[in-house]
Amino acid sequence: MMEPRITIITLGVSDLERAVKFYRDGLGWPLSQASAGDIAFFNLVSGIVMALYPRPLLARDACLEDNGGFGGITLAQNVESEEEVETFLSDAVRAGGRIIKPPSRTEWGGYSGYFADPDGHPWEIAYAPFFTLENGVLVLPE
Amino acid sequence: MMEPRITIITLGVSDLERAVKFYRDGLGWPLSQASAGDIAFFNLVSGIVMALYPRPLLARDACLEDNGGFGGITLAQNVESEEEVETFLSDAVRAGGRIIKPPSRTEWGGYSGYFADPDGHPWEIAYAPFFTLENGVLVLPE
Repeated sequence: MMEPRITIITLGVSDLERAVKFYRDGLGWPLSQASAGDIAFFNLVSGIVMALYPRPLLARDACLEDNGGFGGITLAQNVESEEEVETFLSDAVRAGGRIIKPPSRTEWGGYSGYFADPDGHPWEIAYAPFFTLENGVLVLPE
Repeated sequence: MMEPRITIITLGVSDLERAVKFYRDGLGWPLSQASAGDIAFFNLVSGIVMALYPRPLLARDACLEDNGGFGGITLAQNVESEEEVETFLSDAVRAGGRIIKPPSRTEWGGYSGYFADPDGHPWEIAYAPFFTLENGVLVLPE
């Protein structure tokens, strides 16, 4: 059976150069040498790869219609404190992102905010005091 | 600076029970005891957590409009062979997914197909002969 595993998350982008600039130069993420032509790859420390690929080509590759907008998927990074939520959201803005939800206390007892990358992909930066991070890795109870 | 890390991917769903059934019962993925109320969590072996959450609440949480459809994000699992591509797509269909792209040879020299989960989230199952998997983990050259 298919393992509970994601190996790659691909974000469709309208301007690959701008997107690479945001993640590589703005956030300082390491662009992989496997990047070539229309596709950019980043090895994430979480053990998965993030790819950037032109959105029309991504839709075509998946045989999907694309009317733009939100697709019901969010990405999150859990961090160690409320201060980190604020710092990382500010870093994202400096890198060319925009805040879509300013950091605030959440219904579930944490503290979080959202930024959008240059293509509008939503990232939550969250501090969840009752979740344990082990070297940055979130491992929930079995 | 913000690390190159994703800790949680959240998929918006229209029917939480159906979605949990697909991933837990259909694919056999381990539902975490941290799941409660409107949210279901799965610890993935890739070192991240996948969450399922009602799509309208997810859009509201991220302060985004949601017109439905594709959002320009795909999830992929790289596997070890062409046979595994076919097996895992069949498993996904048996679990309640549907094929959106039958397995076929790709422009980039691999073999892949896509299925959609019950909420339409696109998953690619891909065999990329020139990418190395180390215990299932895809690590691209730096």
